[in-house]
Amino acid sequence: MSHRGFGSDNHATVHPKIFESLLRANIDHAPSYGTDQLTEQTRELFKTHFGPSALSFFVFNGTAANVLCFRTLLQSHEAIIASDTAHAAVDECSAPEFHGGNKIITVKNPDGKLKPSDIKPLLIRKGDQHAAQPRLITLTQPTEWGTVYSLKELGDLSQFAKENGLFLHLDGARLTNAAAHLKCTFEDIVRAARPDAISFGGTKNGLMGAEAVIFFDPEKIKNFKYIHKQEMQLPSKTRFLAAQFQAYLTDGLCYSIAQRSLDLAQELAKELDHHKEIEIVQKVQSNAVFAKIPKDWTKPLKESAFFYMWDEQEWIARLMLSHDNEPEDISRFINRIKDLKKTP
Amino acid sequence: MSHRGFGSDNHATVHPKIFESLLRANIDHAPSYGTDQLTEQTRELFKTHFGPSALSFFVFNGTAANVLCFRTLLQSHEAIIASDTAHAAVDECSAPEFHGGNKIITVKNPDGKLKPSDIKPLLIRKGDQHAAQPRLITLTQPTEWGTVYSLKELGDLSQFAKENGLFLHLDGARLTNAAAHLKCTFEDIVRAARPDAISFGGTKNGLMGAEAVIFFDPEKIKNFKYIHKQEMQLPSKTRFLAAQFQAYLTDGLCYSIAQRSLDLAQELAKELDHHKEIEIVQKVQSNAVFAKIPKDWTKPLKESAFFYMWDEQEWIARLMLSHDNEPEDISRFINRIKDLKKTP
Amino acid sequence: MSHRGFGSDNHATVHPKIFESLLRANIDHAPSYGTDQLTEQTRELFKTHFGPSALSFFVFNGTAANVLCFRTLLQSHEAIIASDTAHAAVDECSAPEFHGGNKIITVKNPDGKLKPSDIKPLLIRKGDQHAAQPRLITLTQPTEWGTVYSLKELGDLSQFAKENGLFLHLDGARLTNAAAHLKCTFEDIVRAARPDAISFGGTKNGLMGAEAVIFFDPEKIKNFKYIHKQEMQLPSKTRFLAAQFQAYLTDGLCYSIAQRSLDLAQELAKELDHHKEIEIVQKVQSNAVFAKIPKDWTKPLKESAFFYMWDEQEWIARLMLSHDNEPEDISRFINRIKDLKKTP
Amino acid sequence: MSHRGFGSDNHATVHPKIFESLLRANIDHAPSYGTDQLTEQTRELFKTHFGPSALSFFVFNGTAANVLCFRTLLQSHEAIIASDTAHAAVDECSAPEFHGGNKIITVKNPDGKLKPSDIKPLLIRKGDQHAAQPRLITLTQPTEWGTVYSLKELGDLSQFAKENGLFLHLDGARLTNAAAHLKCTFEDIVRAARPDAISFGGTKNGLMGAEAVIFFDPEKIKNFKYIHKQEMQLPSKTRFLAAQFQAYLTDGLCYSIAQRSLDLAQELAKELDHHKEIEIVQKVQSNAVFAKIPKDWTKPLKESAFFYMWDEQEWIARLMLSHDNEPEDISRFINRIKDLKKTP
Repeated sequence: MSHRGFGSDNHATVHPKIFESLLRANIDHAPSYGTDQLTEQTRELFKTHFGPSALSFFVFNGTAANVLCFRTLLQSHEAIIASDTAHAAVDECSAPEFHGGNKIITVKNPDGKLKPSDIKPLLIRKGDQHAAQPRLITLTQPTEWGTVYSLKELGDLSQFAKENGLFLHLDGARLTNAAAHLKCTFEDIVRAARPDAISFGGTKNGLMGAEAVIFFDPEKIKNFKYIHKQEMQLPSKTRFLAAQFQAYLTDGLCYSIAQRSLDLAQELAKELDHHKEIEIVQKVQSNAVFAKIPKDWTKPLKESAFFYMWDEQEWIARLMLSHDNEPEDISRFINRIKDLKKTP
Repeated sequence: MSHRGFGSDNHATVHPKIFESLLRANIDHAPSYGTDQLTEQTRELFKTHFGPSALSFFVFNGTAANVLCFRTLLQSHEAIIASDTAHAAVDECSAPEFHGGNKIITVKNPDGKLKPSDIKPLLIRKGDQHAAQPRLITLTQPTEWGTVYSLKELGDLSQFAKENGLFLHLDGARLTNAAAHLKCTFEDIVRAARPDAISFGGTKNGLMGAEAVIFFDPEKIKNFKYIHKQEMQLPSKTRFLAAQFQAYLTDGLCYSIAQRSLDLAQELAKELDHHKEIEIVQKVQSNAVFAKIPKDWTKPLKESAFFYMWDEQEWIARLMLSHDNEPEDISRFINRIKDLKKTP
Repeated sequence: MSHRGFGSDNHATVHPKIFESLLRANIDHAPSYGTDQLTEQTRELFKTHFGPSALSFFVFNGTAANVLCFRTLLQSHEAIIASDTAHAAVDECSAPEFHGGNKIITVKNPDGKLKPSDIKPLLIRKGDQHAAQPRLITLTQPTEWGTVYSLKELGDLSQFAKENGLFLHLDGARLTNAAAHLKCTFEDIVRAARPDAISFGGTKNGLMGAEAVIFFDPEKIKNFKYIHKQEMQLPSKTRFLAAQFQAYLTDGLCYSIAQRSLDLAQELAKELDHHKEIEIVQKVQSNAVFAKIPKDWTKPLKESAFFYMWDEQEWIARLMLSHDNEPEDISRFINRIKDLKKTP
Repeated sequence: MSHRGFGSDNHATVHPKIFESLLRANIDHAPSYGTDQLTEQTRELFKTHFGPSALSFFVFNGTAANVLCFRTLLQSHEAIIASDTAHAAVDECSAPEFHGGNKIITVKNPDGKLKPSDIKPLLIRKGDQHAAQPRLITLTQPTEWGTVYSLKELGDLSQFAKENGLFLHLDGARLTNAAAHLKCTFEDIVRAARPDAISFGGTKNGLMGAEAVIFFDPEKIKNFKYIHKQEMQLPSKTRFLAAQFQAYLTDGLCYSIAQRSLDLAQELAKELDHHKEIEIVQKVQSNAVFAKIPKDWTKPLKESAFFYMWDEQEWIARLMLSHDNEPEDISRFINRIKDLKKTP
């Protein structure tokens, strides 16, 4: 029996085309630490997707991508503004604080999306040396609630950031999903948000384990190569991270992977919507469905397809679809619901 | 003309008896780095005030006292729970995050006082390695709003902390003022709160510049002497910090200093209360009066006695009384109010 | 034309059996962050190799393995004693200093091997809070010079460490090579050295990218899971690191990989020894040959098989053999030498 | 009986004129955190001594002065080059490593003085991201061995530093003593060394407890005010640090204090030189005499005037003279030697 469920896109397999790319990369000796040809080619490929000024580097995981962006852009007395659900704020075991010394100031919001009006009141102590100085806004796109900033919303936040001397960082652990939802390219997102740095994810979308950080201003990354090494994120056999991204960014593979998980999420949401016992609490714009479910259904439903409770006070489940989920996973889940409804 | 105002108890002079003690200490050679006789005697004196298990060390300022308590008790992945107005959370330029890597989780509250029910919901991710682990509650006594935890409130928080495996830290930059308000001894506070560490202030109460950290468990401070040095808070001529505390803790000087500033604050509050344009927004339990004032009175009143705006949205002024303020400072201020009321 | 050379064992390919294991692991969903079955099985497998008390965790690279060992065992005021050629001392961009605050005290030595008599004089300031306190000896096995500590030497250092309250760490980025040279098991090394922690390498011996840290005392690793996450070394899809080690530690694959590169190194050394212009400067006990070469041969020889200059003052080349080098790489290199000797 | 000895200039009293200045500063309220008039005046006074571009800030102790200089100038991957006896390298409990992440590379030398030829070989890995990058030379003036760099030596080191893109830092915990020895002004030293930062000491020369950091380039200190606060070195009642320096730098007090301790050291050295059992091992250019003494004289001599053993292998005593030592301290010590010589 399969263990496929809705637990996390981290639970999924490596996409076969990614695997093939790894195999192709495994010939001959190649220079290490990012100086091999495949890495150089892949970094060029990033420029075709994110614009000609994109300066990309590979790291091992998403927490590292975020922390390396922060360390590159920020001094230790500068603060990060984040949504209260942001991965960097609540799921990285205070890595940003530890590595950079930076305070994270969180803004409570209902859908994971920050707005300029949330941020403005946080800026009043500018120049006061007793207060950590807000310097960077981090947006998760799509958010941890699966919602997606529109290009207009990104543009507004970008303008606000520029006007207030703040850096803009996109935590794009699932950025391809946002692009798929917005039906736009990565470069469209870059043009709208004008970010100073992007954490660009791959692992949650079918890679074996590779993330990238992308900067746009060569002046700001003068020290990056040392940060990359000192923060223990410089792979020796870099070609095997590059190979994953090369396949991912070639022939639209990234979009087809993303679209599949988005379609499955829409399908699941549509099916759930037929059951009044279940309330979908966020717009389904990425590959997750957040749903209030009856408490006593939790155990049997988890047996049908594993998932995590996202909010144990409101009893909201996070149902996350991966590129390798199958329609039968949804029908199995829905059938279980139908059974449960019959149970007195 | 005097510059005496209500700006801060940091603006005040050194109390003459503290100065005399410094002069008395200035004879002969003495060993450095805390090994002199005066330091040893003064550390003994702390035991008579805080209980026989009190292990005290001198540091240069209040931010350092807090940070050294945190670094001594916490691992980098552990989090600090604080009121959203706590000095450690908002006035230390992210020093706790920088020095220890610790996340500070703040609780919004109206009077600066934490309650067990505020803290309980923050503990649900215990054992989850992705989340910084709450491990220490820091209480400011008196709070930054000038309110004072009762011994009963301290006891309840202490019990909650013990039950949940949390350390309790008292930020007592003005702890003597709380003792004066509660009409209790420091040891009474220790018995009620059973703190793991106290930041005990002196500078705001008439010292030239000296604070102490106090621990109670010799097991927990095995590394303290190294932290003391590495954190750049080990004074070479320690006797001159000890001398200040020796006088402060002798013949009730600390209480008489505190009582005077508390009395002045009560007097000011009583006078302000006669003026309906002014609203006192917090209980006056320490040496500060927080008052909403008419915006256009701010400038003339500041000229009469300088003060800071505490909340620029609600236009709340913080009027802080020091041991060396004089009743005439209050009458000058009140007279200015009376003049302003006459002005059309 | 192949690019196979003697540059580094980081330049080599992934061994086919490692790749097959990755493919086998790529079915179905699996829990993330180290909770999957394959990771659990592989951690058990480590116990059969390193002894039943071995507690292993997977990380992304060797610098991380070292730093996570140090952070787990040391307080920030404690110092690391290392050879002056140790990777942790000179090739990690001060990551140990940055992550842990630890000073590294290096001992100059001719062959990369520390001796108790080197270390003893460094311990005289024990208890002096002004001096960083030596607390851990890190040994590289085999050393960066390709030499190998005998079990007797490890035992002597271990006893010295225990007698002086010092931790012992083995940087075993190529530990299998040492075991192959000593014709012993990993457990023999553990029994001799009684280490507190091991950085156990895989990437340099045919893995795609995976290293392990191994501890032996459950008391010392209570905080490890948080350090693992906070230091950004907790892989989400852990099964793909485990899969590499599973194959590596099964059916003697690790030893056959190591033996092949050792044999090739011996072969190269034997051949070089016929040429009086070349002086082999270290015993060849691992997969590297360190040889003084004529300066003007450097360029043509690098073209024949790339290598790095290890010491530009003494003009010592490091010729490193990998599991996927072929005898023809050696003959090509030797033939080039013969040609150069003919050239006037 | 007096405890005056030769233990340390940290054991000495506060000079009466410094105390008077503290008393004079103790009137009225004054703004805190460095914004008071006395602090501003004293910072101006620094310009008259160190040149018009001198930007000075007050801190609590010497370790902090060094660390704040390093943190202001360096990135975490940059390394500090120091003599193997430098205070920053061996007497600060790895504070530079902890606060900045910086590696300290030490150069062994006989007299505490660095030379360009010592430093050149350390620069060969420039641009290699695996190696911490040497970026700052710290010179102690006078050195921990009491020797003084000539203006010529400072100039040579300065030129070497500029040519190699290195910062130059002077650890001047006793800088006035060097100026007194060189019979030059502070500005002469600045002109010769063109330092990027100076740790300027006061505590060892009769202050109660105050040190300064001095920078010269406003571009480099844009973040200093935040570092000052975050590193817990921003005094609230700054006027009482300023007051000490104001007196110190007025009417030549600093030089007369320094000269007195230098004269006493010369006197002691001259007397010791009459005894063939004692060998003075360094030039006496500051306020310390380093002398090899007979082992069995140590205890009785320490009773006569306390001192520390500087080198327990060579049995070298450090005899340090303070501004408040008296000629009778020397004669008492010498008489004890004479007695010891009579003892069979």
